[in-house]
Amino acid sequence: MDKRFTGMIPPVVTPFTAEGEVDLEALDRVIEHLIEGGMNGLFILGSSGEVAYLNDAQRDAVTARTVATAAGRVPVLVGAIETTAKRVIDRALRAQELGADAIVAAGPFYALPSAAEVADHFRAIHAAIDLPLFAYDVPVRLGGLKLGRDMLVELGKEGVIVGVKDSSGDDVGFRRLVAANEAAGHPLSLLTGHECVVDGMLLLGADGAVPGYGNVDPRSYAQLLEAARAHEWDKAREIQDRICAGFEIVFAVKGQGADGTGIPAFKTAMEAVGVLDNAYMAPPVKALEGENRQRVIDIVHAVGLA
Amino acid sequence: MDKRFTGMIPPVVTPFTAEGEVDLEALDRVIEHLIEGGMNGLFILGSSGEVAYLNDAQRDAVTARTVATAAGRVPVLVGAIETTAKRVIDRALRAQELGADAIVAAGPFYALPSAAEVADHFRAIHAAIDLPLFAYDVPVRLGGLKLGRDMLVELGKEGVIVGVKDSSGDDVGFRRLVAANEAAGHPLSLLTGHECVVDGMLLLGADGAVPGYGNVDPRSYAQLLEAARAHEWDKAREIQDRICAGFEIVFAVKGQGADGTGIPAFKTAMEAVGVLDNAYMAPPVKALEGENRQRVIDIVHAVGLA
Amino acid sequence: MDKRFTGMIPPVVTPFTAEGEVDLEALDRVIEHLIEGGMNGLFILGSSGEVAYLNDAQRDAVTARTVATAAGRVPVLVGAIETTAKRVIDRALRAQELGADAIVAAGPFYALPSAAEVADHFRAIHAAIDLPLFAYDVPVRLGGLKLGRDMLVELGKEGVIVGVKDSSGDDVGFRRLVAANEAAGHPLSLLTGHECVVDGMLLLGADGAVPGYGNVDPRSYAQLLEAARAHEWDKAREIQDRICAGFEIVFAVKGQGADGTGIPAFKTAMEAVGVLDNAYMAPPVKALEGENRQRVIDIVHAVGLA
Amino acid sequence: MDKRFTGMIPPVVTPFTAEGEVDLEALDRVIEHLIEGGMNGLFILGSSGEVAYLNDAQRDAVTARTVATAAGRVPVLVGAIETTAKRVIDRALRAQELGADAIVAAGPFYALPSAAEVADHFRAIHAAIDLPLFAYDVPVRLGGLKLGRDMLVELGKEGVIVGVKDSSGDDVGFRRLVAANEAAGHPLSLLTGHECVVDGMLLLGADGAVPGYGNVDPRSYAQLLEAARAHEWDKAREIQDRICAGFEIVFAVKGQGADGTGIPAFKTAMEAVGVLDNAYMAPPVKALEGENRQRVIDIVHAVGLA
Repeated sequence: MDKRFTGMIPPVVTPFTAEGEVDLEALDRVIEHLIEGGMNGLFILGSSGEVAYLNDAQRDAVTARTVATAAGRVPVLVGAIETTAKRVIDRALRAQELGADAIVAAGPFYALPSAAEVADHFRAIHAAIDLPLFAYDVPVRLGGLKLGRDMLVELGKEGVIVGVKDSSGDDVGFRRLVAANEAAGHPLSLLTGHECVVDGMLLLGADGAVPGYGNVDPRSYAQLLEAARAHEWDKAREIQDRICAGFEIVFAVKGQGADGTGIPAFKTAMEAVGVLDNAYMAPPVKALEGENRQRVIDIVHAVGLA
Repeated sequence: MDKRFTGMIPPVVTPFTAEGEVDLEALDRVIEHLIEGGMNGLFILGSSGEVAYLNDAQRDAVTARTVATAAGRVPVLVGAIETTAKRVIDRALRAQELGADAIVAAGPFYALPSAAEVADHFRAIHAAIDLPLFAYDVPVRLGGLKLGRDMLVELGKEGVIVGVKDSSGDDVGFRRLVAANEAAGHPLSLLTGHECVVDGMLLLGADGAVPGYGNVDPRSYAQLLEAARAHEWDKAREIQDRICAGFEIVFAVKGQGADGTGIPAFKTAMEAVGVLDNAYMAPPVKALEGENRQRVIDIVHAVGLA
Repeated sequence: MDKRFTGMIPPVVTPFTAEGEVDLEALDRVIEHLIEGGMNGLFILGSSGEVAYLNDAQRDAVTARTVATAAGRVPVLVGAIETTAKRVIDRALRAQELGADAIVAAGPFYALPSAAEVADHFRAIHAAIDLPLFAYDVPVRLGGLKLGRDMLVELGKEGVIVGVKDSSGDDVGFRRLVAANEAAGHPLSLLTGHECVVDGMLLLGADGAVPGYGNVDPRSYAQLLEAARAHEWDKAREIQDRICAGFEIVFAVKGQGADGTGIPAFKTAMEAVGVLDNAYMAPPVKALEGENRQRVIDIVHAVGLA
Repeated sequence: MDKRFTGMIPPVVTPFTAEGEVDLEALDRVIEHLIEGGMNGLFILGSSGEVAYLNDAQRDAVTARTVATAAGRVPVLVGAIETTAKRVIDRALRAQELGADAIVAAGPFYALPSAAEVADHFRAIHAAIDLPLFAYDVPVRLGGLKLGRDMLVELGKEGVIVGVKDSSGDDVGFRRLVAANEAAGHPLSLLTGHECVVDGMLLLGADGAVPGYGNVDPRSYAQLLEAARAHEWDKAREIQDRICAGFEIVFAVKGQGADGTGIPAFKTAMEAVGVLDNAYMAPPVKALEGENRQRVIDIVHAVGLA
């Protein structure tokens, strides 16, 4: 397992201007906030980075700027989120040119593949690039497609992938993946995206986490990791409970689609704590307004972050 | 309603070489086969065109070649299948430059939008292009996202879209859409993708169909349309039954993912009837082999197409 | 095929008193309304009969009264809706004692069976009873369980079932079932529950329909059947369109669960046309109130039923 | 919170004879095995008890026998699994007569209720019985119906329910339920059915668990609870990992429906460890055979249970 890709690696949000353009100066501030907050890596152009709403030029701009600003202090993992391998490879090669440290690819989508085609998808990507590859397991955005445990471990043993970001919400599946990975010699770095139960996931053997709420409160996640590594589990649980109290911002937003809920809540909270100047989203998604916005801000204050 | 976009408009398959490249000469033959078979338009770069597996250069090549070969004999509708509006627009503008007659766009995917964001998605695309826009309703590839009846008719009345390709399989929804469209002055051309019940859909008021199996047997669909327009419904049903007997090729393929079932069956049948020289698919999807291939060929012979 | 079980066989609603008890006198009026309206059979204790909300004593009361009131004028099909075969059989034998003409059973639910177990479920029921058995295909209430085409035709050939009530909404599946049933010598009576597209389903070969809205407007369904049998398809479509205009009552109800939508709308419309004195539902489901109730009544008036 | 209903409360399997009848003598042995194994209560007639396959007489027999055999050593919770409140109440009153200590009821099924109707469902049951009521959250068997966090805590505050058995597999939802329950004064006993991550669930505040695999290996779950209560979390994890190695029996079964997988695996393992003489299932579900059976036995031996 590549130790660089363990610990807390938040999916970095992409700030926007009022005109709907990527705000690179705000991105710099987010990056500093995360590195100073103790994060072990940066995962850009993931779902929380609103990757589906960015065109190729914007994706390149985010990649180049993050690499420049991170300046080697922590590794930069870049999402190459496209429907199939051929398209993923085009994006991954561009990220490679721009200095990415690793590529993160989901399974095929819009496409309706067989299990064997999913494995070949990752093999084709690996064969075409010169960077470590993470598999991103996110059924909720892939029409329910779940990456199989045995396939992931097999791809790890083949050297095709170096890790998994598990956003499947299937904790039994994750524990079984941890056990199978261990039995295979631990080829994979297993990162949970289940950011409300990171304490339990670290207890059962996760190598790290990809917490979206880490954009708001990186320090608590860094403390959680420290407590877990010290086997101070009751302390870890307390920190996680504190995180979860803040994470309620996600559930405080009503009447929106999913892309108008969690990420806008994160950005609104980041504005409240002073990291961002605004909470603009990629068009046509709107920033939170009215009661939704207020509820998020109230929670941020209630948990003492601002 | 724009009369150009009614009748039988098949989703054109994309032929490939053994090396996995788009086979433009074979594409020419497919186009001639469809126009000679009486089709009223061509819909390229849809799901049946394996659009999700093609990179931008390949999509451009298919568009340019189809426009050139069709040479104005029938309109060419071009799929701009991308996750969100900003990306759809990039693709649509390119298709526009290359001579497309209309653009076909699905709702957002990978993204998880609200209903209002879906409507704004189509409005943004329309505002950015100078071509008629079709909405493509295909929940099975969009994580279950169904385009709402009221939204579609409203977008029709606004002039945002000129029609709908309905691949939702929800025939009650389609009938309600037909009725609401009629009540609104028939702004939309409503095309069913439910290719096994086109007789019933024409009876209830569809303006046409987008039959994937039309790649194999365009003449029968042309005859079906003719019978329906003459109100010869028993004849229409007989033709549809004959089509359905051939359409069983899709269900004859076992043990594959969805993208390895219907389209490979179409291509194998097209090879059997002499339109294609092979049945290659976009990598990593494989052409049918063994029993799957044989069952398809047997059906093609049994129904007298070859 | 048993000709008794063809044509229009509505799923009879169960009237209730204000106290939540079954209203048997009102049930008599419903039965007369349906028989006078030209219906070919009565299907009691189905989903539209709120079977899931009735205990065994209530189910027995509805069965006995319907058999007595129908008095042999039309056959009475009785739903035996229970989780598994052993429980279905208990109910079916009771219905048999009470004079049922046929039993209607769904696949297993709450249970999570294999395909083979589903077939054995129907075989076990058939073996235990002395009445014709219908299979009821209703995935929306069975956690998505769809009865397979090949299994249904096989069970028909074995003599296990005499027909299918298809409420799956899968019209391509239904057409394939019609074709396979025909190829097997037509052992099954195939009834569509897709009440808004009965014209198209009759065109493609359905043996009849099970229309919930037939409780409101049986005459139109009788006319639709007559037109279809006379091959007057344009007339059939016109009648179906008129039915669909009235069926909009189902979509006029907002903010309810599914069981608080369609059936309450039917009952409210039946009150508006004078068949029922009220629109009470099985507790805890509430009768429609306020705007929901008014919208239903307005539609009933608009289509000229009251 | 009622302390009687905390700790390890396994869902007791129902043994069968070769003829498909409930085997009450074998049930006695299971009960002794569980009580001697340190279990804190017995949950009979749940999904693992194959409740959906038992008729009323069989359910009564299982209840009476369990009450008699347990003889007050541990509380007996009885599943009253029926489609709606009226039917649940009939069953719950019978269980009450037979000496049950608490009733466990799922939300409505086959029915398609609104959220308000689900709450009223539990209120109606509570009002009709004189026993503590547990809500059983099992979306996989209820067509996806998930019991809402706020509703559950509200029902707890009202005194309608005393606890929840959470088999939803939504661990974030469970943590949020734990937090909301705590904020409300802890009215509910929250038991996880997520038997592979009980360590993490106890860490985050679960009051206990309902482990199906506890039928096979109750001692390990008792040890896990003891370790957790002593805040020995690394030890708890080790025990849980050992449990999970054995729980792989569930995943070792291939080619079956869900009801032919987990419970048959439990029974086969119970036979291997000597608690049962056979592994018969309720008809038409079959006991494991051939490779499926052997794989389960091999795992049982590999983990040292037999």
